[in-house]
Amino acid sequence: MTSDGRRVRRLEDERLLRGLGRFADDVSRVGALHLRVVRAQAAHARLLSIDTGQAQALPGVTAVVTGEDVKDVAPIPVRLNVGGHDLSAFLQPVLAQDKVRYVGEPVAAVVAEDPYVAEDAAELVEVSYDDLGAVLDGETAMAAPALHEAGNVAAVLDLGYGDCAAAFAAADTVVALTLDVGRHSAVPMEPRGLVADYDAGTGRLEIWGATKVPVFNRRVLASMLGLPEHRIRLHAMDAGGGFGPRGEFYPEDFLVPWLARRLGRPVKWTEDRAEHLVAVNHSRQQRHRIEAAFAADGTLLGLRDDVVHDNGAYMRTHGVLVPELTLAMLPGPYRVPAYAGRARVVLTNKTPCGTYRAPGRFEGTFAREHLFDVAADRLGVDRVELRRRNLLRPEEIPHVRPLNTIGTDVVLDAGDYPKLLDTAVAHVAGWREEVAALRAEGRLAGLGLAVFLEKSGLGPHDTADVLVGADGTVRVHSGGTSLGQGIETVLAQIAAEPLGVDPRAVEVVNGDTELQPFGGGSWASRSTVVSGSAVRLAAEAVAGRAVRVAARVLGVPESELRLADGVIVGATPDVRLTLGEAAAACAPGSPHLAADEPAGLSARRTFEVEHMTYPYGVHVALAEVDQGTGGVRVRRYLVAYEVGRAINPTLVEGQLVGGVAQGIGGALMEEFRYDDNGQPLAATFMDYLVPTAAETPRVETIVTEDAPSPDNPLGVKGAGEGGLSAAGAAIANAVRDALGLPGGVGALPLSASRVIELLPSHVS
Amino acid sequence: MTSDGRRVRRLEDERLLRGLGRFADDVSRVGALHLRVVRAQAAHARLLSIDTGQAQALPGVTAVVTGEDVKDVAPIPVRLNVGGHDLSAFLQPVLAQDKVRYVGEPVAAVVAEDPYVAEDAAELVEVSYDDLGAVLDGETAMAAPALHEAGNVAAVLDLGYGDCAAAFAAADTVVALTLDVGRHSAVPMEPRGLVADYDAGTGRLEIWGATKVPVFNRRVLASMLGLPEHRIRLHAMDAGGGFGPRGEFYPEDFLVPWLARRLGRPVKWTEDRAEHLVAVNHSRQQRHRIEAAFAADGTLLGLRDDVVHDNGAYMRTHGVLVPELTLAMLPGPYRVPAYAGRARVVLTNKTPCGTYRAPGRFEGTFAREHLFDVAADRLGVDRVELRRRNLLRPEEIPHVRPLNTIGTDVVLDAGDYPKLLDTAVAHVAGWREEVAALRAEGRLAGLGLAVFLEKSGLGPHDTADVLVGADGTVRVHSGGTSLGQGIETVLAQIAAEPLGVDPRAVEVVNGDTELQPFGGGSWASRSTVVSGSAVRLAAEAVAGRAVRVAARVLGVPESELRLADGVIVGATPDVRLTLGEAAAACAPGSPHLAADEPAGLSARRTFEVEHMTYPYGVHVALAEVDQGTGGVRVRRYLVAYEVGRAINPTLVEGQLVGGVAQGIGGALMEEFRYDDNGQPLAATFMDYLVPTAAETPRVETIVTEDAPSPDNPLGVKGAGEGGLSAAGAAIANAVRDALGLPGGVGALPLSASRVIELLPSHVS
Repeated sequence: MTSDGRRVRRLEDERLLRGLGRFADDVSRVGALHLRVVRAQAAHARLLSIDTGQAQALPGVTAVVTGEDVKDVAPIPVRLNVGGHDLSAFLQPVLAQDKVRYVGEPVAAVVAEDPYVAEDAAELVEVSYDDLGAVLDGETAMAAPALHEAGNVAAVLDLGYGDCAAAFAAADTVVALTLDVGRHSAVPMEPRGLVADYDAGTGRLEIWGATKVPVFNRRVLASMLGLPEHRIRLHAMDAGGGFGPRGEFYPEDFLVPWLARRLGRPVKWTEDRAEHLVAVNHSRQQRHRIEAAFAADGTLLGLRDDVVHDNGAYMRTHGVLVPELTLAMLPGPYRVPAYAGRARVVLTNKTPCGTYRAPGRFEGTFAREHLFDVAADRLGVDRVELRRRNLLRPEEIPHVRPLNTIGTDVVLDAGDYPKLLDTAVAHVAGWREEVAALRAEGRLAGLGLAVFLEKSGLGPHDTADVLVGADGTVRVHSGGTSLGQGIETVLAQIAAEPLGVDPRAVEVVNGDTELQPFGGGSWASRSTVVSGSAVRLAAEAVAGRAVRVAARVLGVPESELRLADGVIVGATPDVRLTLGEAAAACAPGSPHLAADEPAGLSARRTFEVEHMTYPYGVHVALAEVDQGTGGVRVRRYLVAYEVGRAINPTLVEGQLVGGVAQGIGGALMEEFRYDDNGQPLAATFMDYLVPTAAETPRVETIVTEDAPSPDNPLGVKGAGEGGLSAAGAAIANAVRDALGLPGGVGALPLSASRVIELLPSHVS
Repeated sequence: MTSDGRRVRRLEDERLLRGLGRFADDVSRVGALHLRVVRAQAAHARLLSIDTGQAQALPGVTAVVTGEDVKDVAPIPVRLNVGGHDLSAFLQPVLAQDKVRYVGEPVAAVVAEDPYVAEDAAELVEVSYDDLGAVLDGETAMAAPALHEAGNVAAVLDLGYGDCAAAFAAADTVVALTLDVGRHSAVPMEPRGLVADYDAGTGRLEIWGATKVPVFNRRVLASMLGLPEHRIRLHAMDAGGGFGPRGEFYPEDFLVPWLARRLGRPVKWTEDRAEHLVAVNHSRQQRHRIEAAFAADGTLLGLRDDVVHDNGAYMRTHGVLVPELTLAMLPGPYRVPAYAGRARVVLTNKTPCGTYRAPGRFEGTFAREHLFDVAADRLGVDRVELRRRNLLRPEEIPHVRPLNTIGTDVVLDAGDYPKLLDTAVAHVAGWREEVAALRAEGRLAGLGLAVFLEKSGLGPHDTADVLVGADGTVRVHSGGTSLGQGIETVLAQIAAEPLGVDPRAVEVVNGDTELQPFGGGSWASRSTVVSGSAVRLAAEAVAGRAVRVAARVLGVPESELRLADGVIVGATPDVRLTLGEAAAACAPGSPHLAADEPAGLSARRTFEVEHMTYPYGVHVALAEVDQGTGGVRVRRYLVAYEVGRAINPTLVEGQLVGGVAQGIGGALMEEFRYDDNGQPLAATFMDYLVPTAAETPRVETIVTEDAPSPDNPLGVKGAGEGGLSAAGAAIANAVRDALGLPGGVGALPLSASRVIELLPSHVS
């Protein structure tokens, strides 16, 4: 039975569709207290006093804690310390100390017998502020009063290679654009939540809801609490979406378990939407000053980008990952002889930033691909042709780009970029006619195309255990976590393949730090690649061991046996042993076990990988602009994407479609705006607009498997982000095309109010 | 640092003494329902009807189930199927089918929103019985109306060797006694309890409270419920005593998880004391017709015993283990040239029986040692001298006794029985004077001595995992369970020794089927021997691996390194690596791991053993009989016990002292009596008398380590039962001595009412 490549129905849907999923808020512990965070109402102020008296006095309130109670607790460390920057001066404390630096920053926490009392009490905590004036613009922040003693520039990153100055000097045409990407982020259906229960008798702490990188978060928490790691057990739960922000270590990830331990009662916290919109990592906000040097024939000679990355008030767990990725991925799938990228990571009085699905690529692809459209028009070259001319050709792959990102060398591992471009262009041939027809009706329609490079499968490793029971059932203890992406199904397929069993007979346990203490978590489109490869190695090891044990049981040479359909079979039909029987033969005390051979038919394997693997794709959008309102409607959308190998094509398609929906949000609707005092203007879904089914067209997908990755045993490349990476670019290009703009659109999101200013009628 | 042999304070007391232990009833699940069992009120009757209408109608009642609902569920299987007897016709169903066979048998179960409603509703279940007449006497039951279609004799066991007929024919003196051992059992401070929670989304079932043999119980439950084993997780809890009955698979162990799954709600059940006294395994009830053949010089020539073993209404999980052990252990530490033991296992309308601490040895030692005292008097030989003359001498050890029990050959592995006897006799030299002084005051005082053989360390194997964290902490996932015996401390010591760490740095997790799926549980004085040896092997493997990894890290040959005090040290002080650093070097992705070497500094090892190991001991009691009431007071008590090697002498002594207290109960006070209709007369602690501190003297102990077991790496023999084994014998002998009886005491317990009939004044 072959599992790889099958459109197996999602195993997790058995429970999710019946309402039997278990999310963080579904965890209830008898006697639990409920936490409510008191959040700063000033964007930048010195804390004069925090009066907790009234809150403490409210019946049902168990405790109110402030920064004073945690002044000896270390700030939250960086998880991904790329580039070796010292960010220690910019880290966020778990509760504000002396100053607050953004509206929404935790300044106190109330614990009460029920969540309503906790919320009421939180409103009774009186915080007095001495306003220090909000620093809100990334550009001007560099010279503004300092948020931190170390200033407002956390890091300056320079990535590049080649002689850019010479390239630009030699250019026939230089095209430059200034482009802003709006501040927005993921808004998963389910806000965050956490439940912690401390057993004072054994000193063990159990935590539910840390769904993303539970093993890392355990390490951080152990260090902050001064507990041995093995005393802490984190359980990932079902999660209503991850997309980057969920599961990073936030102040609440300390406060909830710390208070559970301190108070000797379980503590539960469920984030509400208003909190979510100011508390979780924001993302995306960058200003790009990008310029490209072209020869007369459209050959790209050099690329420069100067990025101001507005990171908000603190450096959080991602450190400078997003600006670094922005720069490292900016050259994309193109032949870029010389490149100079600079990013200044600036702090402002806004919610701190982290990753959001396709971090750096959404921003950089928009900048580059929008520039290319402007350049093509300027050069008088067809926009597709300009790209085709500059794409790396298959014979140039693998392509070592003299850059380093997230501690890895950039080696574009496998691909035929022009072929995928041609496939996409052929697919949308009819769309051009549709645009023409719409225009003939006097409507503002346009087509936008963008080519992009993705990255996925960040190592350095992940570990998995595969275990077979005496009843023949297979279990996987994986280091991944299930954020809704279907990873249980994919890992079950990956484990099932070498064992020849039905993926339905495989149960995948994700994100339990006790069962898999070495898990790397699910992020960066790494689960199928890295966790999946670990599962494959472990399943292969189990299969090999099953055959070895079967040889002992059956008394035939191993070479005469093979594993097929969950049965080890020999030369004749009577020579057979099921996997379950092989597992039974590995029970302790079995005569079939060799000396010191551990009991149980199981194996743990680690998959290690040095480089990321680089999928790539093409987005095409057909958009129409309403001349009266400036509203943009995306009428058609195509994602063509190369994944090397699709373990489950349906899930890859699902990832792409979902990504496009979020891409439409980032391109047209979603934006965290602030007033001049740093008060957030988008603190509910009335103001923070996310696309619904009405705003999302039927997305067409082409998933190709032309270039399997040579760097992992599955040949896969991650597919988690490719639906989003080029959405800003493709939609911006379509709007520009619809409006016939000579230059760029200037900024995302292309909200109606912004687009109306771009309308020819407005310009004229 | 040496851990073995140290009087390390019990690690578990840190929580237990602070009230932070977690017992089954401490587990509460949100939304839990509460179970109450409806128990038969007739001893032997056909079920005419069960009317659940009124119970169902009571507000708060969720479900009422009867035998009809579980008629397709297999009966509870035998766990220890010794001797190959087919007991399938005598197994207990989870709820009575058609007939009830003892008062207390589960006939229905009520589940309600709170335990009080459940109890009220249980009383509203109307059961109509057609009385079939109670069969209550083991002796007459063999010819009485059948309880089961297959009759009332479940099995007849014959064990023996040599030519007994010839031995008796050649005898100078034959001494015969008929002795009854009263029905009693363990009454741990904490009655049983169980909590089950089924997650319909994942199909996983979690159960708390199965503290004894959770891995076995999981297998049984999986089979009865039709679930894969790995979907069920059993957690042993702290337990207020085990002693044999606790943790076996009882009807409630099915009903609670089955109803949790069926109703989709957690279900909790806590046994009350009245239930406990009729529901858990009874034990001990046997009639012995024992006779011994002696040469004129007191040399034992042959031994015969005919045992009627009253097993109550069903064969439970122990099958015929207790009668088999009774026969197999009866020859004890003596040279018995010919032996013939027969046991008839008879069913009666009383609570079914199982093991109680020192099963078969309490009974058999009483029979043999009481007989020896009568024989010594008859032969005119000193009672101690008669024993000394017949004890196996050290040069006869190891002694292969041509018997088989629990599937193992009886090989008395190591010992110097006469030496221990001499030690004990020397210790109590002054006690003879005390008896004389009491007698001189006209008081009825007597000294009783008994020598006994114990058995322990039943295999065939146990499995343990030892894991070292990067913070240097050590964790053990053991197959044992913690019933109060201090096993956490002992296993921590055993793991600490080869690693050279403080036992306090070792955390032992017992009885979690997910963490240790191969555990054999704690029973039969096996934990230190078998689970402990597995822990030692795993710890040694971890130590070895730590040194190997250190050699790679430090770049020196393994041979130059050794592990001491938790540090791997080389020839010079700078060559050193802590265990934690070695563990960090085993993290996934570490360059110090070999290819396919699983991540993590851990090891799983199985200890296998063919034979049991046989500790032995001497009990001496100084008792006084109140001439007015017949009340017996134990004034002094000595246990001398050989354990091979005491990992923690304090805990061995504690085991011995606790055993004596229970022995006093069985010898003098505890008895389950029934009226003629089979109604239990001891259903509360008003009637079932257990010794308190007032009835228990200060127990003196001598723990010797003269004869380490050659069969395990620790040299240990189990110490769980030796405080109890000879208590009936020693106290009966003391009473007989006090009363100057020419024959035997006839029966245990020697309650005041029984003793008064033995008083010389009464006899005369």
